Amino acid sequence: MNIPQTSFPRIVIIGGGFAGISLAKKLAKQEVQVVLLDKHNYHTFQPLLYQVSTGGLEPDSIAYPIRKVIKDFPNFYFRLASVNHIQTEDNLIHTNIGSLKYDHLVIATGSKTNFFGNKQVEANSMAMKTVPQSLNLRSLILENFEEALLTDDLNERNALMSFVIVGAGPTGVELAGALAEIKKGILPKDYPDLDTRQVQINLVQSGDRVLPTMSEKASLKAEMFLEKLGVNVWKNTRVTDYDGRTVTTNTDIEFKTATMVWAAGVKAADIPGIDATCLVDRSCRIKVDSFSKVQGYDNIFAVGDVAFMENEIFKYGHPMVAQVAIQQGKALGENLVKMIKGAKMIPFEYKDKGSMATIGRNKAVVDMKKLRFGGVFAWFIWMFVHLFFLIGFRNRMVVFINWVYNYVRFDREARLIIRPYKQKSAR
Amino acid sequence: MNIPQTSFPRIVIIGGGFAGISLAKKLAKQEVQVVLLDKHNYHTFQPLLYQVSTGGLEPDSIAYPIRKVIKDFPNFYFRLASVNHIQTEDNLIHTNIGSLKYDHLVIATGSKTNFFGNKQVEANSMAMKTVPQSLNLRSLILENFEEALLTDDLNERNALMSFVIVGAGPTGVELAGALAEIKKGILPKDYPDLDTRQVQINLVQSGDRVLPTMSEKASLKAEMFLEKLGVNVWKNTRVTDYDGRTVTTNTDIEFKTATMVWAAGVKAADIPGIDATCLVDRSCRIKVDSFSKVQGYDNIFAVGDVAFMENEIFKYGHPMVAQVAIQQGKALGENLVKMIKGAKMIPFEYKDKGSMATIGRNKAVVDMKKLRFGGVFAWFIWMFVHLFFLIGFRNRMVVFINWVYNYVRFDREARLIIRPYKQKSAR
Repeated sequence: MNIPQTSFPRIVIIGGGFAGISLAKKLAKQEVQVVLLDKHNYHTFQPLLYQVSTGGLEPDSIAYPIRKVIKDFPNFYFRLASVNHIQTEDNLIHTNIGSLKYDHLVIATGSKTNFFGNKQVEANSMAMKTVPQSLNLRSLILENFEEALLTDDLNERNALMSFVIVGAGPTGVELAGALAEIKKGILPKDYPDLDTRQVQINLVQSGDRVLPTMSEKASLKAEMFLEKLGVNVWKNTRVTDYDGRTVTTNTDIEFKTATMVWAAGVKAADIPGIDATCLVDRSCRIKVDSFSKVQGYDNIFAVGDVAFMENEIFKYGHPMVAQVAIQQGKALGENLVKMIKGAKMIPFEYKDKGSMATIGRNKAVVDMKKLRFGGVFAWFIWMFVHLFFLIGFRNRMVVFINWVYNYVRFDREARLIIRPYKQKSAR
Repeated sequence: MNIPQTSFPRIVIIGGGFAGISLAKKLAKQEVQVVLLDKHNYHTFQPLLYQVSTGGLEPDSIAYPIRKVIKDFPNFYFRLASVNHIQTEDNLIHTNIGSLKYDHLVIATGSKTNFFGNKQVEANSMAMKTVPQSLNLRSLILENFEEALLTDDLNERNALMSFVIVGAGPTGVELAGALAEIKKGILPKDYPDLDTRQVQINLVQSGDRVLPTMSEKASLKAEMFLEKLGVNVWKNTRVTDYDGRTVTTNTDIEFKTATMVWAAGVKAADIPGIDATCLVDRSCRIKVDSFSKVQGYDNIFAVGDVAFMENEIFKYGHPMVAQVAIQQGKALGENLVKMIKGAKMIPFEYKDKGSMATIGRNKAVVDMKKLRFGGVFAWFIWMFVHLFFLIGFRNRMVVFINWVYNYVRFDREARLIIRPYKQKSAR
């Protein structure tokens, strides 16, 4: 892979997400060589992907070139690569661009959409974990409305104008809210020859409340906001299948839709070879100790969504969210430096800074340790926090400008079919 | 095509470029029904495409939803469609989404890249006339640098890091200048393990000066700017072939490059059926009279790049530039209203507002009727004019922010491989 051999120990990091980047920053000026691998040449700010899908933000403003993150770090190497296999007995990884020896390996590959084995759902529904996926969803929504204009079949037209979002976690709730605002503010103007009152936004949740990882107060408030926006919330309903038009559930309820978004679960992104017996919880994460070290190895670590670190408080592992990934990445960075210097490592302790979700214009919910609130102020907090965690000054400025514009004008201008989804040849 | 029949005459406009949009705006509040067709659901600001290719601007900030342009116009219909054939004897057009009768037809399909029949050049080189094409070029450039890191073959590595731009019109000159600035400001930081001094930017021009449509003074100045930036300018050199690695010319000169951009010519975008004998000049445009009416028809018009309108001053037709398209679109809009009301139409007269090109940071040339100048002031004029003609307040703001950022930081942040070009399956 053309990486020079030096006297410094080589740390290979797989994945440039929140965990990988936080870790890399901690290793910036240490006496180590760092090789960072990612399938994309950019870091993705996943919490705002739903705004890309709904035309509120440009994809380029929530992505950031990984080379730019590491450009001032000496002894850093980035390679655009996908890992095929880890040969742990020889400290060797095999990728699509060749093989590489490591002294220490950090797996920070994050998570991917979990369809729980349902192939038909996987084939017909949309996921929203990457920028290309989000752009595909944006295209599909717009293409469906263009197609709705062409059909005289009323059922088909309504299916093209309707949405089913499966899973009422933050992603599902935020997407449903954004679509509801588009229904109200943009569709009647863009499609005066369609009866956009027929647009149905259905949010389907297997559990008995939305935002199940937040407080009950937040769940209630969020559901109230969703109803106010015209989203149909279906609780205690589990989607069983989807053929591209009809969504079946475990109850009598069926939905007719051409767009089903699957936000009902994630699982760790596989790395073949890391462990034959696969030490996992049900979302198949890699079991690590409190120093992020993978069970059974001395020089392999895992951080972020991919890692399953259990303790007294988190009996089923830490939540698969950005905050955990960032904190684990930072902690491991400090521990690796300690380890190489022969100092004692410090066990990871998660500092829960709270969680939040936005439902729409002036509508958000925030859970902090002692404070739980919703509404306009929560919405401002949500925006401020997201701007703060976004990487790059230019990205922050562009996102801010877009938000101000969208707020003042009740608009979302990035409704462009730049990479058609249906007519893939037209890309 | 599901367009209601009304008592108003129906005007069908094919193409939402500069000409089509200017025309549509003039018809906004008239007693006509307008159907606007385009292959894309957005208008493209083509003069800034080279900045998308070189990571300076997001694609979304130079594209604008066509539905948003026409949303306040009554009796306007937009359809995402590509026209297959015009059946003039029945006033009928056939598209991929069905057929449509017209009372008046306006062809505003613009132009596309002209490879002058060389299939191998067409297959191996990059064009830059649409947003998807510009994004493909952006991806290819970045992918080539990632690949350059992996090879030990010095010739191959240099080919991956080199560029040949064919054609020194505004597009070629602006792209060459932007690449030269990337070579200087970004590549050494992003690729410290490559010898980026080896990056070659070759601008090849068949004629004896760059910017041949501008004044000799502008040509000289532009060439001086290009040389200052380190671009190799090859005049009186015509590219004869390109196999993906080797560029051959009509002289002894050969270039080794993995990226050849073809900006050497355009031709009118075909519309099968409009005229069997094809009344054309050598770039195959549709011959029109001074009212933009297509020869031989009473109700078919053509405006912009696709139209060939000759007169005393423009013996070979008007230049294929945005200004002509905008003015012809406006003039035809006014004339159509006159025609329908039975009033006398006014022949088109082009008001040349001058031309300009930017070469790089603080480097531009401007030709106006009495004033010809270059340098910092020209560069500011260039930016101001482009911001002014860009559609949409948000686009202007976002482009402005990006320009300020890029200027202050010597940076271009949108260097993202979001739709891989080589590995198309990874899209």
